[in-house]
Amino acid sequence: MHIDILTLFPEMFTGVFQSSILKKAAEKEKFSYNLVNFRDYTVNKHLKVDDYPYGGGAGMVLTPQPVFDAVAAVKKERQTKPRVILMCPQGESFTQRKAEELAEEEHLIFICGHYEGYDERIRENLVTDEISIGDYVLTGGELGSMVVVDSVVRLLPDVLGNQESAPEDSFSTGLLEHPHFTRPADFRGMKVPDVLLSGDHGRIRDWRKEEALKRTYKRRRDLLEHYVLNETEQKVIDKLRANEEK
Amino acid sequence: MHIDILTLFPEMFTGVFQSSILKKAAEKEKFSYNLVNFRDYTVNKHLKVDDYPYGGGAGMVLTPQPVFDAVAAVKKERQTKPRVILMCPQGESFTQRKAEELAEEEHLIFICGHYEGYDERIRENLVTDEISIGDYVLTGGELGSMVVVDSVVRLLPDVLGNQESAPEDSFSTGLLEHPHFTRPADFRGMKVPDVLLSGDHGRIRDWRKEEALKRTYKRRRDLLEHYVLNETEQKVIDKLRANEEK
Repeated sequence: MHIDILTLFPEMFTGVFQSSILKKAAEKEKFSYNLVNFRDYTVNKHLKVDDYPYGGGAGMVLTPQPVFDAVAAVKKERQTKPRVILMCPQGESFTQRKAEELAEEEHLIFICGHYEGYDERIRENLVTDEISIGDYVLTGGELGSMVVVDSVVRLLPDVLGNQESAPEDSFSTGLLEHPHFTRPADFRGMKVPDVLLSGDHGRIRDWRKEEALKRTYKRRRDLLEHYVLNETEQKVIDKLRANEEK
Repeated sequence: MHIDILTLFPEMFTGVFQSSILKKAAEKEKFSYNLVNFRDYTVNKHLKVDDYPYGGGAGMVLTPQPVFDAVAAVKKERQTKPRVILMCPQGESFTQRKAEELAEEEHLIFICGHYEGYDERIRENLVTDEISIGDYVLTGGELGSMVVVDSVVRLLPDVLGNQESAPEDSFSTGLLEHPHFTRPADFRGMKVPDVLLSGDHGRIRDWRKEEALKRTYKRRRDLLEHYVLNETEQKVIDKLRANEEK
């Protein structure tokens, strides 16, 4: 997979792209990336990439020309049909399912605005996807694109070792993860539940399932709407409901 | 505001913290931050900070000791009652409202795990908040904490100039933003809507409101559940519904 990131702040990406999994994945050539400052593509003699909005109002708007030309340039370098992704609050809410979908692609291009709005013609005629990582306001699209890249690259074949991939339970099973405990069994008076020290694997499995259901029920009941409960799980939920009604 | 970030990968933060708004805000002393490698606090002679989970299973778990001691150390340096925030997929979903709430605090401490799970005693006895930035799996809590810090710091007094703060409409009005256009009026055959060139401010306002409603209706109908429509807005929505039913 190749990833092009179009941004006015390429230096923002160094720490994240040169650490941990992204660094290792790039070194092992599981993906390659290129940071493109689209200011380099503006034909404006003052190197401006934004302008006042038609119809008035506060804030500036990214002009279409530098973005269109930067995308054309990175497209031309490869024989691929890339996904062109606009990071913006109006986009579809990013999910693990979308990460899995993007992980199948050969070439992703990210467009990151900063402060400004995007000229609508970028949305209408250039991009294939608009993505928002959540319902909160960020200074620019850079952090959002890092989040998407991290979640996608870790899904590529041979990127994660066994040890690193294990704790992703939370969104792959559809439930929040059960609690974890490690040594010491007694940390300053705070103790590990007896069941985990029992060596009885059946009981441990049941306890974990029940705790995962409890946690999901208490914290993220919305996730249960999409989860098909088996008979035992249904009983756990019924008990939680009954306790609440008391 | 002071922010302490406990992480095993402090170098991940450089690019983001030394660019744009976060850089300016730190320079203007609107906030200060400290990156703390909690590995420095482990009493393990091999400098280990994780261990196998009780009860078996794949993946490693962060032991409580280094995290408890690092939090104690950064708490001791100030006379504040900090919020201690655990970045994790099981946390509450981060929203703009939560960013506004955190922006009122004097001292935030973020705990970022990486690959591993957290020992449950960290959740139960150390943290005040558990936050997830969205329903997707990331390699660690570092990117999540950068997202939260960016969204919080930009809300602090005198951090944003007028120009930078304008386009945050999307989550402050409760609707997605209307389309923006800037020069040129005709870009390679793609034209700006006539209304925006009309100079008729009343028509422009109405057009923008209608487009914002349309976009929200098409893309994020869930946002309309919490939005109180006035009479004119209700008519726009009724029209959209009627068109769909045809």
